[in-house]
Amino acid sequence: MSTALISPTDAVTGARERMERAKRAARTVGLLSAERKGDMLRAVAARLEADTDLIVQANATDLQRGRETGLSEALQDRLRLDPARVSALAVAVREVAELPDPVGRVLDERRLENGLELTKVAVPFGVVGSIYEARPNVTVDIAALALRSGNAVVLRGGSAAEHSNRALIASMQAALESVGVDPEAIQTVDDFGRDGARAMMQARGLIDVLVPRGSAQLIETVVTESTVPVIETGAGLVHIVLDESARAEWALDIVVNAKAQRPSVCNAVETVLVHRGAADRLIPDLVTALHDAGVTVHGDPDVAARAEGVVPATPEDWATEYLSLDIAIRVVDDLDAAIEHIRSYSSQHTESIITDDPAAAERFLAEVDSAVVMVNSSTRFTDGGEFGFGAEVGISTQKLHARGPMGLPELTSTKWLVRGAGQVRG
Amino acid sequence: MSTALISPTDAVTGARERMERAKRAARTVGLLSAERKGDMLRAVAARLEADTDLIVQANATDLQRGRETGLSEALQDRLRLDPARVSALAVAVREVAELPDPVGRVLDERRLENGLELTKVAVPFGVVGSIYEARPNVTVDIAALALRSGNAVVLRGGSAAEHSNRALIASMQAALESVGVDPEAIQTVDDFGRDGARAMMQARGLIDVLVPRGSAQLIETVVTESTVPVIETGAGLVHIVLDESARAEWALDIVVNAKAQRPSVCNAVETVLVHRGAADRLIPDLVTALHDAGVTVHGDPDVAARAEGVVPATPEDWATEYLSLDIAIRVVDDLDAAIEHIRSYSSQHTESIITDDPAAAERFLAEVDSAVVMVNSSTRFTDGGEFGFGAEVGISTQKLHARGPMGLPELTSTKWLVRGAGQVRG
Repeated sequence: MSTALISPTDAVTGARERMERAKRAARTVGLLSAERKGDMLRAVAARLEADTDLIVQANATDLQRGRETGLSEALQDRLRLDPARVSALAVAVREVAELPDPVGRVLDERRLENGLELTKVAVPFGVVGSIYEARPNVTVDIAALALRSGNAVVLRGGSAAEHSNRALIASMQAALESVGVDPEAIQTVDDFGRDGARAMMQARGLIDVLVPRGSAQLIETVVTESTVPVIETGAGLVHIVLDESARAEWALDIVVNAKAQRPSVCNAVETVLVHRGAADRLIPDLVTALHDAGVTVHGDPDVAARAEGVVPATPEDWATEYLSLDIAIRVVDDLDAAIEHIRSYSSQHTESIITDDPAAAERFLAEVDSAVVMVNSSTRFTDGGEFGFGAEVGISTQKLHARGPMGLPELTSTKWLVRGAGQVRG
Repeated sequence: MSTALISPTDAVTGARERMERAKRAARTVGLLSAERKGDMLRAVAARLEADTDLIVQANATDLQRGRETGLSEALQDRLRLDPARVSALAVAVREVAELPDPVGRVLDERRLENGLELTKVAVPFGVVGSIYEARPNVTVDIAALALRSGNAVVLRGGSAAEHSNRALIASMQAALESVGVDPEAIQTVDDFGRDGARAMMQARGLIDVLVPRGSAQLIETVVTESTVPVIETGAGLVHIVLDESARAEWALDIVVNAKAQRPSVCNAVETVLVHRGAADRLIPDLVTALHDAGVTVHGDPDVAARAEGVVPATPEDWATEYLSLDIAIRVVDDLDAAIEHIRSYSSQHTESIITDDPAAAERFLAEVDSAVVMVNSSTRFTDGGEFGFGAEVGISTQKLHARGPMGLPELTSTKWLVRGAGQVRG
């Protein structure tokens, strides 16, 4: 079905109707036992494997269109689903099936003097929405995490992955049906195009939380245009501070790892701030090590004066999330200046200090206001998998509800249960 | 200063400048020890008492204008500050000073196999904003709660309380200064009128969380117009279900208490759903008891057939938060129909069932999706004070971050501290 055939009004109506179905399905999904939810996800994994040919064929249609419309090689690779990748998706779903059920955890218990018994328990949100870009694995990933935590899910992937997403969703819905779970618990509004996304952002009362995943621009749009609660994820303008007392070996290893091991991700470092007292000692070897790793170094005059092949940094460099083999390096007068730079430019995702001075370490941990603040560690460890969560919903860069890597418990809300025996308020 | 003299652009610039000052002050307030924060609040309480005459005089100006502009007697009473009320405000601030510090609580600890030590700690949000209506006590209330949890605060009260709020804020700022805390931690944008409120709602990066307090319309405006994260509070379309097995004594006591003890608040009951199997047994005495308490009963034909003096209910009654001595009563066929009615009309604040049937009680607790779900208890107990929180920031009716009564811990976010020894990711 082509988007062009649907008027905006019909699209909004159609999208809302899907969300209403998700909301109805959420009632029953929310009451499933941990065992039933595990069975459901194992059925999803099996069905994805069984449907591999259909999924790969649908993906070929998207890839064909991608080539015709000039999609870059990198984006074509993100879009591609071959049998091995479908198999990897199924494995990931089985891993989610084994995670502890976040629903029903008792978070607080109180017995009041009047005899009322209060229990605060974790409950599913209800309907989780996600707006994301052309990576079909997110379709399965978010659906599995939402279902494992007892939620229904409404998905809006990019149009570039339209056929792939439709095949994946049909496969997952069929799996739900096969184990007696309402298949309406997985919905897509992809066929309504941008109007579908807009309807989701305005769906107060239908969508309980919206998690955007993708480019900074997509996240910005969702955050500013939504009237439903949003969890902001992803932007990573990440800093490493090399303190006066930084061990040279740790400094070099950590900066090179944090930049070059996987430069395209949000926990990769973008800016290094070097204490003036360590500049002569550290900068020459650091720049050499980065160059050896294929990294372009953008440095201020204090950096350029101490190493060859440094590209002059402009003020814009301090505000740039490169997501590439580029790094900005600046010499700062002291820890205060480093913290001040971070306050001005950080996206409050992750910052790390390399230091042998316990006082500097503790000051950095206390005063830097980011989701994850590290001492003597690569920023690449900010990750739900590395933190031991078993799965990652995203990395929140906001302060409300969840901050930093989010696991399954972050896809739940709470409810107070009160048990009485006729108590009234005096 | 009259709002009319400031252009909208200047107002937005001026309001943003105040928020920037709050953000700078938040850095130091966030690092204060529990003891320093306690001392600060005790100084605030003492200063409010010392400034009683000034505050009462300023309030007299607001009251005078209120009378001239035809403010209702009820609203004039809400606005009034006499010496006894100022003294009560100081007492409340001293109580907040004694509450446990929510900052620094360790919420999770992990040691990874690679030796990284992870600690998740509670940290202040940074800057808490509040937009509220003409009750000057909220000015002190929110400021004390925000400061106790290490936050700076930006306030926007209604113009009807402009002079009172200015006097209260000046008094609190002077108290902060007297104990060496940056007085910029308390800001008001009242003098910028509606433009000040609009600037707050758009202040991403300056305000970390916005808590509206006031009418349903005010909250709706803040939720829909804000790009900063909001905690929605207050709307209470609260239900009580009288199950087939409900004890008559509990049913009558609880409904009358939940409606008549304080009808103007959000945890007062608005609709009673009576199981058809208990209608003959309960309705006649229930309606009599409500009439005796001065309550107007709006009932469906099944209610009217069983009692005198029932006003015919229209479909609108089921959707009305009366906040007055009015109640809607409807007969439903069974528990399913009761839960379905709640799903259609509830604001998901509080619902209670009166029943002697444990299966019905547990079904109700599991299937009703509200912040607080009760068995055999008056809904009036949904309250931070009653729950033992020591203070109440508001009652959240959203699912993100906080749900139900919010205490001081709900004014904090979290931060992961990671301590390593040169670890890099493989």
